[in-house]
Amino acid sequence: MKNQNTPATKTTQIRLTRRAPTYWRVTFDHPPLNVFGPGAILEMTEIITALETDEHVKVVVFDSAVEGFFLNHSDFLGKLEDLTGLPAGPTGLQAWPDILVRLSRAPVVSIALIRGRATGNGSEIALASDMRFASREKAILSQWEVGVGLIPGGGPMARLPRLMGRGRALEVLLGADDIRGDLAELYGYVNRSLPDADLDAFVDALATRIASFDKRAIIDTKNLVNAASLPPDVEIAAGWSACLASIVRPAAQERIKTLMARGFHKPGDAENRLGYYVGELGH
Amino acid sequence: MKNQNTPATKTTQIRLTRRAPTYWRVTFDHPPLNVFGPGAILEMTEIITALETDEHVKVVVFDSAVEGFFLNHSDFLGKLEDLTGLPAGPTGLQAWPDILVRLSRAPVVSIALIRGRATGNGSEIALASDMRFASREKAILSQWEVGVGLIPGGGPMARLPRLMGRGRALEVLLGADDIRGDLAELYGYVNRSLPDADLDAFVDALATRIASFDKRAIIDTKNLVNAASLPPDVEIAAGWSACLASIVRPAAQERIKTLMARGFHKPGDAENRLGYYVGELGH
Amino acid sequence: MKNQNTPATKTTQIRLTRRAPTYWRVTFDHPPLNVFGPGAILEMTEIITALETDEHVKVVVFDSAVEGFFLNHSDFLGKLEDLTGLPAGPTGLQAWPDILVRLSRAPVVSIALIRGRATGNGSEIALASDMRFASREKAILSQWEVGVGLIPGGGPMARLPRLMGRGRALEVLLGADDIRGDLAELYGYVNRSLPDADLDAFVDALATRIASFDKRAIIDTKNLVNAASLPPDVEIAAGWSACLASIVRPAAQERIKTLMARGFHKPGDAENRLGYYVGELGH
Repeated sequence: MKNQNTPATKTTQIRLTRRAPTYWRVTFDHPPLNVFGPGAILEMTEIITALETDEHVKVVVFDSAVEGFFLNHSDFLGKLEDLTGLPAGPTGLQAWPDILVRLSRAPVVSIALIRGRATGNGSEIALASDMRFASREKAILSQWEVGVGLIPGGGPMARLPRLMGRGRALEVLLGADDIRGDLAELYGYVNRSLPDADLDAFVDALATRIASFDKRAIIDTKNLVNAASLPPDVEIAAGWSACLASIVRPAAQERIKTLMARGFHKPGDAENRLGYYVGELGH
Repeated sequence: MKNQNTPATKTTQIRLTRRAPTYWRVTFDHPPLNVFGPGAILEMTEIITALETDEHVKVVVFDSAVEGFFLNHSDFLGKLEDLTGLPAGPTGLQAWPDILVRLSRAPVVSIALIRGRATGNGSEIALASDMRFASREKAILSQWEVGVGLIPGGGPMARLPRLMGRGRALEVLLGADDIRGDLAELYGYVNRSLPDADLDAFVDALATRIASFDKRAIIDTKNLVNAASLPPDVEIAAGWSACLASIVRPAAQERIKTLMARGFHKPGDAENRLGYYVGELGH
Repeated sequence: MKNQNTPATKTTQIRLTRRAPTYWRVTFDHPPLNVFGPGAILEMTEIITALETDEHVKVVVFDSAVEGFFLNHSDFLGKLEDLTGLPAGPTGLQAWPDILVRLSRAPVVSIALIRGRATGNGSEIALASDMRFASREKAILSQWEVGVGLIPGGGPMARLPRLMGRGRALEVLLGADDIRGDLAELYGYVNRSLPDADLDAFVDALATRIASFDKRAIIDTKNLVNAASLPPDVEIAAGWSACLASIVRPAAQERIKTLMARGFHKPGDAENRLGYYVGELGH
């Protein structure tokens, strides 16, 4: 685990900015790859708690300060115990699925502004958000896990089929490939993909608009949509258990090791074209 | 409440035409804005009962005779008691949600032909219909309610996520903006958007086609689709309750009053560009 | 019932090819129309059992060797008893719905490569598969049954609304018309439609890719998606019962008889443009 993942420097990876009391930004800023480790989970837990309890905030936008990466896969250089040793959250789920489930239920509208890769954790936090808008040219969404023998842990098996139907969800998950802006829009993986030059202004205008509305009306409406559409927590819990069980299997350990040898976890081609690289592991 | 909303002239606002015993048209004709009040609810109740009990009708198309408006929001000039005082329907739901739920279950195929604005009630009756086809150039769909501090009352929190997924449903409901033909088609808000010049012929051909099929096969098939896809009534009831609770809150009353001062409920820019206007209320 | 439908020549209609131990092809090859009868159901039962029990297979692609037809409607020239007399399968469902339900749950990834007509049974096996890819120019999907007074028997009332929403599902089922590649993609009836020249290479690359992944990770992920998205068996059973009840009704018998007189079940225009022909029956 890298040093900046410790509590002492816990605000290093994720930056919370209050553009207005009603409109916050949460910016993933962990260069060079925006990899997501236990330290970031602790930071996210604090942010979620703030979103749940603040009286004024109505909208939060998730974005990235790292070129090429919205938010990336988990940190595979740390110890697994640093992840599994995190305390369970108030939902009873383990830390990462707890954060995602709470975000979907939080009394605030969450919008993922996706530029660069949203791989693994990045895709999962986008899916747990209320809306997703992507850069047509620069967004890449990816549930890459099956490609290295893993099961995704943050709930995409529960969320993707409810968003895009079973067939496209299975393609995303079992194909484990990079999904670009046009296809993400066609499949409903994101609300819309916009020209990169228009994305920031579009999301900012939507966030500002919603932040001008009545908070009570927003919350009551969101809660009713949640009742109609959120997966039950037990499905999220089952995905997390399957994920943990998969990590320790030799099939996964060997593939991750091979991928590491080919440049995974370092800036370069393996991270940039992860979909291609996982497709080469079994040959 | 306007005079034409009284029972004595109750057939003024909605016109039922039997193109054939098997194929009916229900035309919203309440110029200049096709606003929807308690009088129209009573008319719709009679029409729904006729659709439920007629032995011959197989298809009903909903359309509009009012330029620019398929069917509009509720009548805010009347007394709230005229709406809440309407008797509950046979489903146990209040009058408006009762109509919508019965339409979705009726032993007849309902098709919304959307040209002009389908705002509030107009969007809700379209969503309760079995299919929706929109004019690419002239249709505007809108659940505008959150923009004035209200919660929609006719079930879109239950129906939209099942039609387009949670993320796009939340955008439609919490963005409270005007949705035009192309986006409505992309999101699955409507089955398809067609060039305005082709819309009437397309819907008429489809309605005529279905009306030529066996009624029993139509009903049995629709009932099985309903079992797979309709929201439970309790979700519709919860939305209606939340709507009624929202109307009397100061946040909503003040926003509606401001909107009235800016031209709401009168022909003109505020009605034509309602999405823009509700976005200006909070500034 | 044609002779080749008997057990003695049971491998005539469906060909199983092992491209690799991990990657199988199942090819519908029953010229000239790829009509699907009780003999083919028996063959499919054996194939499903093989897919369920083989330790190595990870991916199966369904395709066709018959020009113009991926897989067609049921054989209406045989005796109904040959269909209804087939033993129930291990799910407790009758043979055809049993096959479809087992395919969706099988520990293998199924991909339908759709070129030509996928009518009735052909559409149903595509919908029971995990993914569907269609030729943009040459694929035609069709649940034609309501057009002749029948109810589809293989579960599309349960599957289509979960894939494309209630409105589009009702259009497909109650319109009973031919759906071509572009519309099938827009509606999510298929994952994607591809230029016919690219379809084979695309599906082969995806199948080869998935076949290179870890089988356990594939299965666990698919099972979790299934938990989130598969219809309950009782809905499939209800559709099958409704189908059987519809076949013996005079409305269906008369329409099928008329359609036979117009060329149904023979190579030619009635089969090629079935959507058009069923639309003419009621006039």
